[in-house]
Amino acid sequence: MRTPGTDRIDAPRFGRRALLTGGAAGAGLGAALGAGAVLGIPALTGTEDAPDPAAAGFGGETLPCHGAHQAGVATAPTAHARYLAFALRPETDRAALARMFRILSDDIEGLASGEAPLADPEPELAARPARLTITVGVGPGLVDRVDPARRPAWLAPLPSFARDALDGRHDGGDLLCLVQADDPLAIAHAARMLARDLRSFAEPLWTQQGFRRARGAEPAGTTMRNLMGQVDGTVNPSPEDPDFADLVWCDGRASASDAADVSWLAGGTALVLRRIRMELDTWDRVDRPGREQTIGRTLADGAPLTGGTERSAADFDARTPHGLPVIPGYAHIRRAHSEDPAERIFRRSANYDADGEAGLVFACFQRDPLRQFVPIQRRLDELDLLNEWVTHTGSAVFAVLPGFAPGGVLGAALLA
Amino acid sequence: MRTPGTDRIDAPRFGRRALLTGGAAGAGLGAALGAGAVLGIPALTGTEDAPDPAAAGFGGETLPCHGAHQAGVATAPTAHARYLAFALRPETDRAALARMFRILSDDIEGLASGEAPLADPEPELAARPARLTITVGVGPGLVDRVDPARRPAWLAPLPSFARDALDGRHDGGDLLCLVQADDPLAIAHAARMLARDLRSFAEPLWTQQGFRRARGAEPAGTTMRNLMGQVDGTVNPSPEDPDFADLVWCDGRASASDAADVSWLAGGTALVLRRIRMELDTWDRVDRPGREQTIGRTLADGAPLTGGTERSAADFDARTPHGLPVIPGYAHIRRAHSEDPAERIFRRSANYDADGEAGLVFACFQRDPLRQFVPIQRRLDELDLLNEWVTHTGSAVFAVLPGFAPGGVLGAALLA
Ligand code: HEM
Ligand code: HEM
Repeated sequence: MRTPGTDRIDAPRFGRRALLTGGAAGAGLGAALGAGAVLGIPALTGTEDAPDPAAAGFGGETLPCHGAHQAGVATAPTAHARYLAFALRPETDRAALARMFRILSDDIEGLASGEAPLADPEPELAARPARLTITVGVGPGLVDRVDPARRPAWLAPLPSFARDALDGRHDGGDLLCLVQADDPLAIAHAARMLARDLRSFAEPLWTQQGFRRARGAEPAGTTMRNLMGQVDGTVNPSPEDPDFADLVWCDGRASASDAADVSWLAGGTALVLRRIRMELDTWDRVDRPGREQTIGRTLADGAPLTGGTERSAADFDARTPHGLPVIPGYAHIRRAHSEDPAERIFRRSANYDADGEAGLVFACFQRDPLRQFVPIQRRLDELDLLNEWVTHTGSAVFAVLPGFAPGGVLGAALLA
Repeated sequence: MRTPGTDRIDAPRFGRRALLTGGAAGAGLGAALGAGAVLGIPALTGTEDAPDPAAAGFGGETLPCHGAHQAGVATAPTAHARYLAFALRPETDRAALARMFRILSDDIEGLASGEAPLADPEPELAARPARLTITVGVGPGLVDRVDPARRPAWLAPLPSFARDALDGRHDGGDLLCLVQADDPLAIAHAARMLARDLRSFAEPLWTQQGFRRARGAEPAGTTMRNLMGQVDGTVNPSPEDPDFADLVWCDGRASASDAADVSWLAGGTALVLRRIRMELDTWDRVDRPGREQTIGRTLADGAPLTGGTERSAADFDARTPHGLPVIPGYAHIRRAHSEDPAERIFRRSANYDADGEAGLVFACFQRDPLRQFVPIQRRLDELDLLNEWVTHTGSAVFAVLPGFAPGGVLGAALLA
C-alpha cells in the first residue's frame, strides 16, 4: 500500500519530475519559474543557462494544493474543467473511505505539483500540470455512510423546479473530483489516474467537460463568453471581497434550521452544478435588441442596458422616455439579482459542446444552497426571459471538503 | 441570398469586427498585430496608445484562408480540432452544391478573418479566431452526384483490415469540415455557423473532437504527446521538404491505374481519418521497457531505442550484445516505416477523450491513400506490438478540395 506523500513534500520540489522527463533541467526549471510566478516569488536569475520561462511555456506552472481551502474554488478560473462523479461501491465502508481519501490526497499532491503520483505509469503526462487543481466533493450518500447526523440539510438533491428536465445522465453522485487546468492533456491524464485509483472504491457515474477561452487568447482577467455570445460572470463576488468568506466558505457551525453536526465542513463549501442546455438554433433567430433585453446587458461588451461599461452597476429603476423599464422586468439579470446581500452565489461556469448538444456547465459555490442558489433559481424558474432558450438537464450538489495540509489527508475531519 | 464576400475582402481588414466588438480599437488592433506576426509583417509601432499585442492575447491571430491549397493541412497544428461530417440531402443537386460551396467559402472567409460571416448572429464569438482554419473535404457520394467519372479510385471506403472494429458511428460522409484553432470557443462557434448554413443541403452525420497540448503550454514546435504518453509525430514529412508536394498535394493528373478525371483535385489532397481507441487500462500495466519496445522509442523524450535524441534516426539494424534487435521486429516504428520514400504519409493526429473512451484521432494527408496509407496500415494490421492496445473504430476518406482565391469559390473546378 502507498504511504502518504510526505517524503515527496520534503524532497526538492522538482527532482523526480526532472529525472523522469529526460528533457530534465529545462522542464524542471521552467516549472520552478512558473510556480514562482504564481506564488509571487521572484523568478530565479543569475544562472547562465537558465531557460527563458516564457519560451518553456506555462505548462510547468503549478498551484498549491494545500491550505485551509481546497484549490479550484477561489483560484482564478482555468481554460478547461472536467467533473468526474462516482458512485461508491456497496462494500466501501468507513475504513475503505479512509484509505480512499489517503490515496486521493496523494494523487492530488502528485498531480498538482507535476511530480506525478508514485504509481503513475505516465509521469511525462503529469509533468506539465498547467495550473492543475483537483477539488474533491462528497455527495449525500457518502456522508450518510459515515454518519447521517453529519449531513447538512442542503446536502441532498435540490428541490425540483417546474422547468427542470433532468435526463438522469448528469445527476447526483457520492463523490466528485473537479479537475481544472489550462491544458486539456493535463486534465485527461489526471482524470485517468483518479478513475484508476478510485476504481476499487467507486464506479464512474458521469463526467462533464467544460471550456472557456484558451489561456492566452485574451487579456488575463477577461470575463468569459458563453455559447449564446454573452459576457457571463460579471456580477460575481470576488475572493478579495470582505464578505466572500461568509458567502462561500462553511464555518462548521450548525445553523438554526439544521441540527446536523457540520464541524467537518469548516473551510469547505457547497457546490451546485446544473447542466443547462441552450437552444441555440432558435436563439440565433432572435434579433440583437431582443437578445440583449433577454439578459439586460449588451452583447458587445456586457454593459448593462442602462449604460456604462461591463463593470458599471445596472440601474434597475431607469425608464425609457416612454416610461418602460430599460432593463425589462423579466430580464435575466433582474430576476437573478438578489436584494439580500447574503443571498448571493459565487459562479464558476464553463461551456460545453459535445454530442450535438451545447450549453452551460453552470457551477456555483456557496455556504448554503438552500439559502443562496435555491431562492435565485426559484425566481428564474418562475419567470426569466432566458427560459425560452435554456433547459436544466442535470443537477447535483456536493459538499466540497475543507483543504488539507502537507502530511494531512482530505476528509480527515469527516472521518474523525 | 448572400453574395460572395468580395466587398469584405477589399474593405479595411478589421473594420466590421472593431465596430461589432465594442471593445473595438483594442481588439481590432490586437488582431492586426497578431495577423502581422503570423504573416511575418512587422508589428505596428509608434502610436501612443497601441496596446501591447502580447497582453491582447493570441485570439486575434488569423491565418490566410486563400491560396493554392486550403489552410489547415500544411499550416502548423493547432491545439484543438473538430471534424464535422455531413450526409447530403437527397435533393441537393449540382446547382444546390454550387450554392452550398459559395456559402461555405463565404463562411470560411468570415470566420477565418474574424470579421464574422455576414449572417453571423454572434459576431463577438467570431472576432477572435485564434488561427482558425476550416478545411473542406468531399466524400465519394458528393463526387458521384456531380460526376462518377471524376471520382478517383481512392475516394471510397478503405479496404477493410483484419483488426478493424468500426462501430458505424464515425465512418464515411459526403462532406467534411475540419475546423482547427487554438481556442475551443472559436471552434464551437465556427462549427455552429457551418452546421446552420449547411442545414438545407446536408445533415450532420458525425463529429469528432481532438486536442493537443494547449497553445503556450510548451515551447513552440514541441511534438505532441498522445494519451499513451508517447511523443507522437516525430518522423513526418515537413512542408519544407522538397518532396512534400509530391507526397501530399494532388497534381490533377490521371494515374496509370486510375482513369478518373481528377483535374479538379490539383492542389487538393486526400485525408484518411481513423478513430483509434486506446486500451489504457491494460497499457498502464505494461512495464516501462515493454511500453518503449512496443513503439521502438523512449517515453522520456521519444528518442529511438538505438540512442540519440528525438530527431535522431532510428538504427533498425542495431543489435544487443545478445544479438537481438534493439528495436524489436514488430515494434510500431519498424512496421510503420516505409523503405519506399513514396510510401509516406503526412500525419496530423490529435487526442480524444470523451464519453469514457480515449484514443487517437489519427489523421493523415497524402496524394493517394491506396499507395500510401493502405500499405502501411496493412503491415500494422498484420503485425504491430501496439495492436494489443489499439482498435480502429472509425474510418473515413475525403478528398480535400484545392484552395480558392479571394473572389473565388471552393470546389469551383469540381463543379465546372
Ligand atoms: C444557461 C443558463 C444561463 C445563462 C446563459 C446565464 C447568463 C447570464 C448572463 C449573461 C449574466 C450577466 C453577466 C453576469 O453578471 O454574469 C448573468 C448574470 C447572473 N446570473 Fe445567469 N445565466 C444562466 C443561468 C443562471 C442560473 C441557473 C443562475 C442561478 C440560479 C444564474 C444566476 C445569475 C446571477 C446571480 C447573475 C448576476 C445578477 C446580478 O446582476 O446581480 N444564472 N447570467
Ligand atoms: C493509436 C494508434 C497509434 C499510435 C499510438 C501511434 C504512435 C506512434 C508513435 C509514438 C510513433 C513514433 C514517433 C513518431 O515518429 O511519430 C509513431 C510513428 C509512426 N506511425 Fe504511428 N501510431 C498509431 C497509429 C498509426 C497508424 C494507423 C499509422 C498508419 C497506418 C501510423 C503510422 C506511423 C508512421 C508512418 C510512423 C513513423 C515511422 C517511421 O519512423 O518511419 N501510426 N506512431
